Amino acid sequence: MQSPSRTLVASLHPSLREEIIIRGWIYRLRELARTTFIIVRDCSGEVQCVADSALVRAVSLKLDEPVEIKGKVKPDTRAKAGFEVEVIEISVLNRVTQLLPFNSCSDITEIGIDTILNYRPLSLRNESIGDIFRIQAAIVHYFRSFLRKRHFTEIITSKIVSSGTEGGTNLFEIKYFERCAYLAQSPQFYKEHGVAGLERVFETGHVYRAEPHASSRHLTEYYSLDLEIGFIESPEELIQLERELLNFIFEQLNQDYADVLKRYREKPLPQMQNVPTWEFAECLELLNRHFGRTDLVDDLDSEAERQLCQLAESETGIAALFVIGFPLTGRPFYTHPRGNSGASQSFDLLFEGIEITTGGQRLHRREDLEQALKNRGIDPVSFETHLRMFEMGMPTHGGLAIGLERLTARILHLANIRQATLYPRDRYRISP
Amino acid sequence: MQSPSRTLVASLHPSLREEIIIRGWIYRLRELARTTFIIVRDCSGEVQCVADSALVRAVSLKLDEPVEIKGKVKPDTRAKAGFEVEVIEISVLNRVTQLLPFNSCSDITEIGIDTILNYRPLSLRNESIGDIFRIQAAIVHYFRSFLRKRHFTEIITSKIVSSGTEGGTNLFEIKYFERCAYLAQSPQFYKEHGVAGLERVFETGHVYRAEPHASSRHLTEYYSLDLEIGFIESPEELIQLERELLNFIFEQLNQDYADVLKRYREKPLPQMQNVPTWEFAECLELLNRHFGRTDLVDDLDSEAERQLCQLAESETGIAALFVIGFPLTGRPFYTHPRGNSGASQSFDLLFEGIEITTGGQRLHRREDLEQALKNRGIDPVSFETHLRMFEMGMPTHGGLAIGLERLTARILHLANIRQATLYPRDRYRISP
Repeated sequence: MQSPSRTLVASLHPSLREEIIIRGWIYRLRELARTTFIIVRDCSGEVQCVADSALVRAVSLKLDEPVEIKGKVKPDTRAKAGFEVEVIEISVLNRVTQLLPFNSCSDITEIGIDTILNYRPLSLRNESIGDIFRIQAAIVHYFRSFLRKRHFTEIITSKIVSSGTEGGTNLFEIKYFERCAYLAQSPQFYKEHGVAGLERVFETGHVYRAEPHASSRHLTEYYSLDLEIGFIESPEELIQLERELLNFIFEQLNQDYADVLKRYREKPLPQMQNVPTWEFAECLELLNRHFGRTDLVDDLDSEAERQLCQLAESETGIAALFVIGFPLTGRPFYTHPRGNSGASQSFDLLFEGIEITTGGQRLHRREDLEQALKNRGIDPVSFETHLRMFEMGMPTHGGLAIGLERLTARILHLANIRQATLYPRDRYRISP
Repeated sequence: MQSPSRTLVASLHPSLREEIIIRGWIYRLRELARTTFIIVRDCSGEVQCVADSALVRAVSLKLDEPVEIKGKVKPDTRAKAGFEVEVIEISVLNRVTQLLPFNSCSDITEIGIDTILNYRPLSLRNESIGDIFRIQAAIVHYFRSFLRKRHFTEIITSKIVSSGTEGGTNLFEIKYFERCAYLAQSPQFYKEHGVAGLERVFETGHVYRAEPHASSRHLTEYYSLDLEIGFIESPEELIQLERELLNFIFEQLNQDYADVLKRYREKPLPQMQNVPTWEFAECLELLNRHFGRTDLVDDLDSEAERQLCQLAESETGIAALFVIGFPLTGRPFYTHPRGNSGASQSFDLLFEGIEITTGGQRLHRREDLEQALKNRGIDPVSFETHLRMFEMGMPTHGGLAIGLERLTARILHLANIRQATLYPRDRYRISP
């Protein structure tokens, strides 16, 4: 939208003859004795303005103030855009405090995460931080676009649930009128029900884990890119789907955000269609042979994730691999077994040193789910509402979930997941 | 995605010569003595299959069971698609219970909302219900597409907050480790901070209201289509933006879902670019003159919303209007005044009898917000974290929020908002 009187910076052009009005923030100020050069930024871009210094002094203009400028476009070969704006009038729309710890044009490499969060509006205006969230928005957009083209329907499911999907640990409790409810740990059950209704579904939304540890890779609230698909024969179909999905997202990012990516990573994002799949048992052997590790039993730890990515990179040139066949015991009750040796059809995607996806084929028969619950000492009666949904035509199915903040952090090589979260929540932080 | 062996129904073609495999649900079954006609549906469409009745009896096929069929495509001029599938083998992937209260092919007009929810996978497979959620997914998609094209950035903000945006009533309390937190009632503060960072932002996500009444138009959890935009001069710019936004969404729906819409409403969705804006005071006069109403003071009630839509329809042919200038007293503290008479720059959009949007211009100066809080007897100190964000270059701004379930229900003429919610939450329901 454009108000009748305002022109977006991106729409300025040297052929404009009449007076124009632009609005934006003061990004840079260079005051000489008689002339002041002002870079103004809005959501569409930036432009150099030239003002009589007396005019600027009269309003005591400061960096980062939102302004309205009336002016004229003047062709000028010295300016990057081939023109600049000659300022006729300038008015400040709001004052900024004198005490800003940084500016939108500052190098903020040394600024700590707490300051960045406490000055969120300002830090977002800083290009290197704003770009993180523009990339993040693009990732979600490409995720949805890819799936919509493949007959997936977006679903919106409740985050207020009466019990957990995985047995009741790490749940946040809500006081729900006179009852007790919980924040959903995942849309797992709902997306499975969705498959029995629509065959292919996805959801992009928050999930909640009351995890007491506050590490650089965990949040209590994160945004999950979830999908679930029916009528599959094997988890390898899901893996192939994820290869194509990530390949699409990465190609789009390489194409539309090449300049941004260059500032965060040495190489463009890799092609994902040939990322290998290694069996969990094989991974343990490799970790033993190459790194002397004998401590892992039924899961990988973060060190093992880094080590496996390193091995994959030396083999394929890309630091990514799918690990399949995790022991059933370490996976949720609804996980489909892989053969009879205690392995599961559950997989992780490790990408540049960290797990960014968990997925797998699920049990689709009520009787198998009941047995799986009993094997874990859980009374199926407590899952009756869920189990009933498997009597209405549930096909074979599986799915996966990608943690958006983790993926963003990996793509941009950010050390802490909080850098890829607008308002992170952890053990200690619930504000701003 | 397509597994190596499976063909989606939409990809079947009479020119296919080799054996094919399809997977889907039994939508209709017509058994004659020697031949059985089976309609199979998957996420891409439906196809008629013809089987030897003995083959069908051998697997005791039932409606709504998920199946795999091996067969051959046979051109047949009697079939709608110009071909049918001759069944060679059929296997049932999972059994359905004998006790389904309806089928995916049933007329479900008489089925109550509780049964629909308790059989959600099955009800979603019923076309008339599945279409509600396909339309809903499309609305969200068009909302995002429109805004992305206009320099808006999608943001994801926390739903766990330390206090309410509007004074602390109707909040759900969360046990957050040893502290107390709340479910966000709206992303209002965060999207304002977002404007000061990115100028134009939108968010699509859940919001929570602990409203004890369980009416046909209220939920405790709903999906809000939120936007906020900087550097505006007046709320009329927001109204114009919403006209264009809804016009885009409605045109896309009319174009891509014409057949579906026809089943729910007599006329296509209206053009929205000329929806009028009426002052609140003028609305009270009209309600008095046409309906003898003298009971309204600082807000409209649901009857008044219907009455005003009726008046707008008789004037413009379209049952929609914007009402602007609600009394400040009835609106949140951050609302911008409209003149000096106690009116506000806050507006509602009434559409086909119900309010589907609230929006407005907001105060953008810290001192004005402080004063507004004091005027309401609230100590500004309790909003200090929020108020500080207005010292970092906050431009003039405003925004609006559309309730997705309400909009969906209005578009499809559904009597109860629960019909437009996959898993509704209200005073009494937190499951499934």
